[in-house]
Amino acid sequence: MIELSKIYAAKEKVYDVAIKTPFNYSRFLSNDKYNIYLKCENLQTIGAYKIRGAYNKIASLNEEQKKLGVVAASAGNHAQGVAFSASKFGIAAHIVMPESTPVNKVSSTANLGANVILKGDNFDEAYAYAKELEKTKNLTFIHPFADPFVMAGQGTIFLELIEELNNISYIIVPVGGGGLISGIVSAAKQINPNIKLIGVQSKGASAMLNSFNEGKIINSNKVKTIADGIAVRDVNEDSFNIIKNNVDDMVMVSDEEIANAVLFLLEQHKQVVEGAGAASVAAVMHGKIPNLSGNVVCILSGGNIDITMLNNIIEKGLIKSYRKMQICVTLIDKAGALLDLTKALKDAQANIIKVDYDRLGTDFGDANITITLETKGKAHQEEVGKILKEQGFTFKEIK
Amino acid sequence: MIELSKIYAAKEKVYDVAIKTPFNYSRFLSNDKYNIYLKCENLQTIGAYKIRGAYNKIASLNEEQKKLGVVAASAGNHAQGVAFSASKFGIAAHIVMPESTPVNKVSSTANLGANVILKGDNFDEAYAYAKELEKTKNLTFIHPFADPFVMAGQGTIFLELIEELNNISYIIVPVGGGGLISGIVSAAKQINPNIKLIGVQSKGASAMLNSFNEGKIINSNKVKTIADGIAVRDVNEDSFNIIKNNVDDMVMVSDEEIANAVLFLLEQHKQVVEGAGAASVAAVMHGKIPNLSGNVVCILSGGNIDITMLNNIIEKGLIKSYRKMQICVTLIDKAGALLDLTKALKDAQANIIKVDYDRLGTDFGDANITITLETKGKAHQEEVGKILKEQGFTFKEIK
Repeated sequence: MIELSKIYAAKEKVYDVAIKTPFNYSRFLSNDKYNIYLKCENLQTIGAYKIRGAYNKIASLNEEQKKLGVVAASAGNHAQGVAFSASKFGIAAHIVMPESTPVNKVSSTANLGANVILKGDNFDEAYAYAKELEKTKNLTFIHPFADPFVMAGQGTIFLELIEELNNISYIIVPVGGGGLISGIVSAAKQINPNIKLIGVQSKGASAMLNSFNEGKIINSNKVKTIADGIAVRDVNEDSFNIIKNNVDDMVMVSDEEIANAVLFLLEQHKQVVEGAGAASVAAVMHGKIPNLSGNVVCILSGGNIDITMLNNIIEKGLIKSYRKMQICVTLIDKAGALLDLTKALKDAQANIIKVDYDRLGTDFGDANITITLETKGKAHQEEVGKILKEQGFTFKEIK
Repeated sequence: MIELSKIYAAKEKVYDVAIKTPFNYSRFLSNDKYNIYLKCENLQTIGAYKIRGAYNKIASLNEEQKKLGVVAASAGNHAQGVAFSASKFGIAAHIVMPESTPVNKVSSTANLGANVILKGDNFDEAYAYAKELEKTKNLTFIHPFADPFVMAGQGTIFLELIEELNNISYIIVPVGGGGLISGIVSAAKQINPNIKLIGVQSKGASAMLNSFNEGKIINSNKVKTIADGIAVRDVNEDSFNIIKNNVDDMVMVSDEEIANAVLFLLEQHKQVVEGAGAASVAAVMHGKIPNLSGNVVCILSGGNIDITMLNNIIEKGLIKSYRKMQICVTLIDKAGALLDLTKALKDAQANIIKVDYDRLGTDFGDANITITLETKGKAHQEEVGKILKEQGFTFKEIK
């Protein structure tokens, strides 16, 4: 575990750049058995908790180390945490990202003043190059999680929690490399060992969970999840030891469950949360934690979701929640056929948002028309179907 | 103006249901001339500030009035504010909405325990029916803004602001009916008359702004804006008088500027804000307020944006920011033509997310293919165009 004194020491530093993030009760997720509270690290500076650990680490460097600068490998929140923290001290930060990194991830780190280096076909190659720069340029390598200063920085979240709430029974934490939960569990168990810590991983990146269950390190061959912030392939020994010895349980959520949680937080809590950040809420929403009770804190670890991904999650969510409907109608290809159809859809009060018309895919004389409709819910979709049938249209729904 | 004592009295009540909402510095919007702070009423209970006024009003009723219950006309945030507040007191709330109200708006109010009555073709008819129920059923009508208790409730926002920040120079407030700004300006000018209050309206619903500029009430004939929370047609005399005599200036933003602000807040601040709520930030982003300086507070008044609307704003934003690209390519209709095209797009590292194939709209022997691509920015889109040209494809971009 990280010593409590180190976490209190971090508390004296991190607020140079970090904020005490909002802490909210969720009436939607709470019930007779438990109260759910959300710790909104998505609203943290740089949109994620990573700034705490990165800043605490960089603040610990001596003047010589600061003069030479720091290096890190990350295309995500750690990159921004290091870049932002380094710029606060006015020191050089070199961030290595794989060559395929999307431009917006490059620019959001470069905009914070870092020297972004695109190198390698994947994260491992970028990481290797960063380690090379550490040696050849005498830079300090800032590890994304396996570092006591980094973990101590993340542990300051717990100190904020106990300022907000008495009698915490559970804290639910997304787990990738394990730096966040290592910091929080260290603080929690030394202050109140009765608090239960639950780690959440994505099904597609569950190396730490597998290792926790087997009691020994088991790396993954590959990772695949929409929660890129916790897509970690190899288990680090330092964080594994802290987790194995102190975390109470680990659970898994699927990409679909994560997407549900992202959409739920967006709609009900007006919060943008990335996949990794929503894993804690996904675990609660989908009943992954047996016997949950008392005051439960879900850590929303970050909000840096790619807007294209968010768009996809909303799109799929609209279809799943019956607010969007796609139907393919076969029309007799004659004047007025489309008019009759649009009249029927007006009767059904369904708003047309897209039309694709095709005369090729059907028998001669017919035409297929694919229509995307805005609908008001399941009952409304059934009503649309009923009206089309009554008016003699042949159609099928596209799911 | 609303007396300060009434606003302090409201402060003693509203936190039964409301929360002190997060207050954040925006490093993205701040510059050498001014610091921008965001007051996040989108994160308020029910996702909007309206709960403050509605609760303060209902709390002021006598036992007889409470026993008989309350009535309101609204399909938006006021409906939820009244429903939530009434349920807290265990009293009946009747909410009249137009018949065409989307199911999700009905259910989000009904879920709070209100009796939702669908009546009338538009808001005016719903309002008239609510006023009728006030008389026939002896219910207390809860006005959405033109009520001193409602305004006093909204004024509690200012009391939170001065707990957070000294030396406020400007407060920028979205204006529909004017209840929010009436409450805030009353508190502000009585406590520190140097603070400047700026009201923001949508171009498509600018009755209060027009009245402010002309010094007399000028109603609109119709309203049309994506900011439905401030789409108010007729100017109320009570709020007009407060605004005319106390607000320093009023400015206007377009729907496109509002949409930009919604997307900005989503991406950079990880906040879901409805159109009305983002109007204040839109005014700053688009330089509508001359000589802005010092510590500036933008009120984000609510977050209850329809998810379909949000989806449209993201979609359009992706195209505008060059992260989505639609091209129509004319292919010679022969085996392998599509293969060559997909190879070219792979060379350009452009991810295909949608394909529409049509052999009808072109000359015999050709086929039109419309492809939607994920791109990384403007330079990447130019690169895609260059590679397609080099490889001999005929195409046009669809904007």
